[in-house]
Amino acid sequence: MTRTREIPVVQAILSANEQVAEENRRTLARHQVFAVNVMASPGAGKTSLILATARHLPANVRLGVVEGDVASRIDAETIAAAGIPVVQVNTGGACHLDAPMIRSALTHLPLETVDLLFVENVGNLICPAEFALGTHLNVVVASVPEGHDKPYKYPGVFTRSHAVVLNKADMIDVFAFDLDAFRRGVAMVNPHAPVFVLSCKTDMGVPEWVRWLLAQKEAVHPSTTP
Amino acid sequence: MTRTREIPVVQAILSANEQVAEENRRTLARHQVFAVNVMASPGAGKTSLILATARHLPANVRLGVVEGDVASRIDAETIAAAGIPVVQVNTGGACHLDAPMIRSALTHLPLETVDLLFVENVGNLICPAEFALGTHLNVVVASVPEGHDKPYKYPGVFTRSHAVVLNKADMIDVFAFDLDAFRRGVAMVNPHAPVFVLSCKTDMGVPEWVRWLLAQKEAVHPSTTP
Repeated sequence: MTRTREIPVVQAILSANEQVAEENRRTLARHQVFAVNVMASPGAGKTSLILATARHLPANVRLGVVEGDVASRIDAETIAAAGIPVVQVNTGGACHLDAPMIRSALTHLPLETVDLLFVENVGNLICPAEFALGTHLNVVVASVPEGHDKPYKYPGVFTRSHAVVLNKADMIDVFAFDLDAFRRGVAMVNPHAPVFVLSCKTDMGVPEWVRWLLAQKEAVHPSTTP
Repeated sequence: MTRTREIPVVQAILSANEQVAEENRRTLARHQVFAVNVMASPGAGKTSLILATARHLPANVRLGVVEGDVASRIDAETIAAAGIPVVQVNTGGACHLDAPMIRSALTHLPLETVDLLFVENVGNLICPAEFALGTHLNVVVASVPEGHDKPYKYPGVFTRSHAVVLNKADMIDVFAFDLDAFRRGVAMVNPHAPVFVLSCKTDMGVPEWVRWLLAQKEAVHPSTTP
């Protein structure tokens, strides 16, 4: 007698990276840490944005940072000098962070005393957008000297970001930067993303960015101390 | 009777990309075209460098350009508007050009009327350095607003380049750029690479760069017309 063999329903298998990203999400949730993946070209001002944000945070929101770089400890040392707990991840050539790197970095941070975690990705406007890390938000930082055409040329990272920061806005006139064209480019690929036009050097526009960021954090992990 | 089976000597197999790069080298040699692979972060000024070079070239050196971008035809249209033969390669997400893309692009250029070919790689300071295209020179373009720490953070592309161009040098004071630290960083990873400090906006330093570039070209393909 032949028996009908039951074929099991195959569940969607998450990619190895996505599985670890999910693990990171659980780790962050367990410690009530809100995490932001910061992506940008080299030199757009990722580290400067983290430091400017730190200057405008209320005292009850404690920062932590994961610094991703191909090589060097330059940015981690800058962050540490500001008294912020930081872990440096050197990818040794890889062009983006991935979830396993973040899982490892999280074991080296005092998560119980961190409310807001910045993950500074490798300077690259293409590859980082492809890899989930387990963070709550993706933010792309563009900068005025790069030119206003970046959303048109690198649509992937702009599409996958929850917000767009335009840094070095004190240089808009110097570089004849077309802010309207930039905004149109962002709106074309990501109509709902807010655009924060700011300068980490002069602090212009930074309070508005921090206000928005805190509102996102509060929606996920409300502050316990006022 | 068993027979001893002869095991053939396995020759070193070139990677698929390297094989096509070699094919590109032969195509370029056949047409006496000298080709330069230009790599940089987004917005460092690769297109501006090509246009500034065009303004300073002697009339007997005819340009051609391959424009690499994830998306858009913005740069190709700028180059075409300057009257230079150009082919746009859209990688559709890929973070670098590879040799097969260049092979295909070369079939669309009038190589018999091109002496100097610029291949503008995708804006990315990491991945492009890993892929041979069959060009004669690699040149990395850094720019002042990105900061002087780039050779330390992205050593790969600086190591694999024959020359370093530092663009937007008219902004050195505005951005408090440490030129000595930048030069030390380059020297650390690539002691013999010349560093051209220039501004494509003001043309400052461009003649020196063009003189060097032409000397490299002459060494490979001497001009037939003076």
